[in-house]
Amino acid sequence: MHDVAREAGVSQTTVSLVVNDAAGSGIPFSTQERVRAAIEKVGYRTNRLARAMRLNRTETLGFVSENIATTPFATRMINGAQDAAWEAGHLLLISDTGEINSPEHSHRERLAVEQLLERQVDGIVLASMYHRVTDPPPPLREVASVLVDLSASDDSITSVVPDEFAAAQQATAHLIEHGHTRIAHPTIDYPGAVAAQLRLDGYRDALRAGGIEPNPAYVITEPSHTPGGRVAAARLLDLTDPPTAIFCYNDQSAMGVYQTVQERGLRIPEDLSIVGFDDQQLIAAELVPGLTTMALPHYEMGRWAVEHVLNSHDPMRPLQHTIACTLIQRGSVGPPCR
Amino acid sequence: MHDVAREAGVSQTTVSLVVNDAAGSGIPFSTQERVRAAIEKVGYRTNRLARAMRLNRTETLGFVSENIATTPFATRMINGAQDAAWEAGHLLLISDTGEINSPEHSHRERLAVEQLLERQVDGIVLASMYHRVTDPPPPLREVASVLVDLSASDDSITSVVPDEFAAAQQATAHLIEHGHTRIAHPTIDYPGAVAAQLRLDGYRDALRAGGIEPNPAYVITEPSHTPGGRVAAARLLDLTDPPTAIFCYNDQSAMGVYQTVQERGLRIPEDLSIVGFDDQQLIAAELVPGLTTMALPHYEMGRWAVEHVLNSHDPMRPLQHTIACTLIQRGSVGPPCR
Repeated sequence: MHDVAREAGVSQTTVSLVVNDAAGSGIPFSTQERVRAAIEKVGYRTNRLARAMRLNRTETLGFVSENIATTPFATRMINGAQDAAWEAGHLLLISDTGEINSPEHSHRERLAVEQLLERQVDGIVLASMYHRVTDPPPPLREVASVLVDLSASDDSITSVVPDEFAAAQQATAHLIEHGHTRIAHPTIDYPGAVAAQLRLDGYRDALRAGGIEPNPAYVITEPSHTPGGRVAAARLLDLTDPPTAIFCYNDQSAMGVYQTVQERGLRIPEDLSIVGFDDQQLIAAELVPGLTTMALPHYEMGRWAVEHVLNSHDPMRPLQHTIACTLIQRGSVGPPCR
Repeated sequence: MHDVAREAGVSQTTVSLVVNDAAGSGIPFSTQERVRAAIEKVGYRTNRLARAMRLNRTETLGFVSENIATTPFATRMINGAQDAAWEAGHLLLISDTGEINSPEHSHRERLAVEQLLERQVDGIVLASMYHRVTDPPPPLREVASVLVDLSASDDSITSVVPDEFAAAQQATAHLIEHGHTRIAHPTIDYPGAVAAQLRLDGYRDALRAGGIEPNPAYVITEPSHTPGGRVAAARLLDLTDPPTAIFCYNDQSAMGVYQTVQERGLRIPEDLSIVGFDDQQLIAAELVPGLTTMALPHYEMGRWAVEHVLNSHDPMRPLQHTIACTLIQRGSVGPPCR
């Protein structure tokens, strides 16, 4: 700082005031510019630790999530959070707590939150890679926090989640508009998957709104990955009254449905229309024909969470916010030909 | 700290020594345990900022990379880095600098490094989502640093990259062992893609080692995504002397090759054997038949980088380290039938 002051021809106090953006310090703009040029020339770096202790804020936010490393599409969430943090001049510190089904996960999650708090982050975003309800680690309540694709079982923390119900309604209505009445929905049987129940409800609601009585034979459960989709499609196509359209639980299972359809020499969408869910990168747009699907608002949720953490003035009044999904139309939906 | 001391029946100095893991403090283990129990009960939290200023280390590491949000497989790298950091009791702070081709990328990269340095991280890992050579931001040299899937143009910083040449040799040799002599290699024409040149060299080297003169008609360039793979396959299969095997630049383009092959009513591997590159999650294992491919050592590179940052005793002697890729055999390679 001594070198900067000498280079700029000002006192060390002036340098300190400029560096710390002291409001109302009355330092002329030209002097501020001279100090900044000197800082650049001398290569002086603020000690943010000292600054943070003085200001009682660190201009850093924590982002904690499981399975970042194994959930491709959900990293869009990080992108949204990161963009909002950059724009506000904050550093987003991401901590991946690893595999959610591992025995050490809840320990790691609590530890990540504790470690971020020890580093005096100004707020924490706790995100999930699939929509679920949780009991968040209690220390989370010590700073401004937002849950993403996750809600607290007692609604005590602000949360942002996709509107799964409306998305399933829209996907199903899209098939009905094309003339389908025999619409199947393979779903998952996974404890705590909030999305599965909401999507099933939305699917049934749209059918009834379209004057179609839901056929229980068209709702089956299979794992939501590609092999599960292959099996689901085979089961549904083997029914005596097979569906003409399938609203899949996600794009990975839709990929399996495509494989079974192609194996049997059937055509998409002529013999079977398909709607996915996720708009999964590297899959949805690349299948032939392109997969019509519901895009989850991962980017928007990440951005909303950071903006809310930074701007919320009343953390004591938690909000439960939902964001709409978007129908992405490609080539997998047409009128039924059977 | 006063409450903890009273709860444990010890002095505040003793609490401080236990909290800060002061080596050789001579405090009996039973007393240490009592202090820790009291900390748990009272809910006392260390101020890491104060501790960091005293110890001159923060037990945090920075991980900076572009395109984390849009590169699924490469997040394995974060997983490896995160695991190594957890094991060493360090917090890994991940900063995503966004789209590498955006105009603000190099500014963001430098800013991320600066911001991490201002927060006194003990080391920085700078990672790339595809193998390239760069001029790293100069401040990186101020702490222990390792480049991942990236090397400095002047080799002045320790770097860990995949052994692309040996991987391409192995993939090509695998096809030769199955009896193929007409082996094509669609590659990419992308400035600065080190991997493309190394893989092409490895492919040619393996052909010559197998007594096969490389056929220039079998090396074509197309973008390395699924539509590019579709086009590449069509171009190669339309040759008067078409290849019996294709060693693809990556799994995404292999997915496109599958689509063209299926469209033409050909069979894999009977009519065309295929080897990919990446072992891309959600694709390689899910294609029918499963794709034989070279797995990049993303997890291992991430882990190596963090371990090296933490344990390197001579940062002035930069290493250039390579890690082998692994051949993952599935169902897309067989003997040629034509």
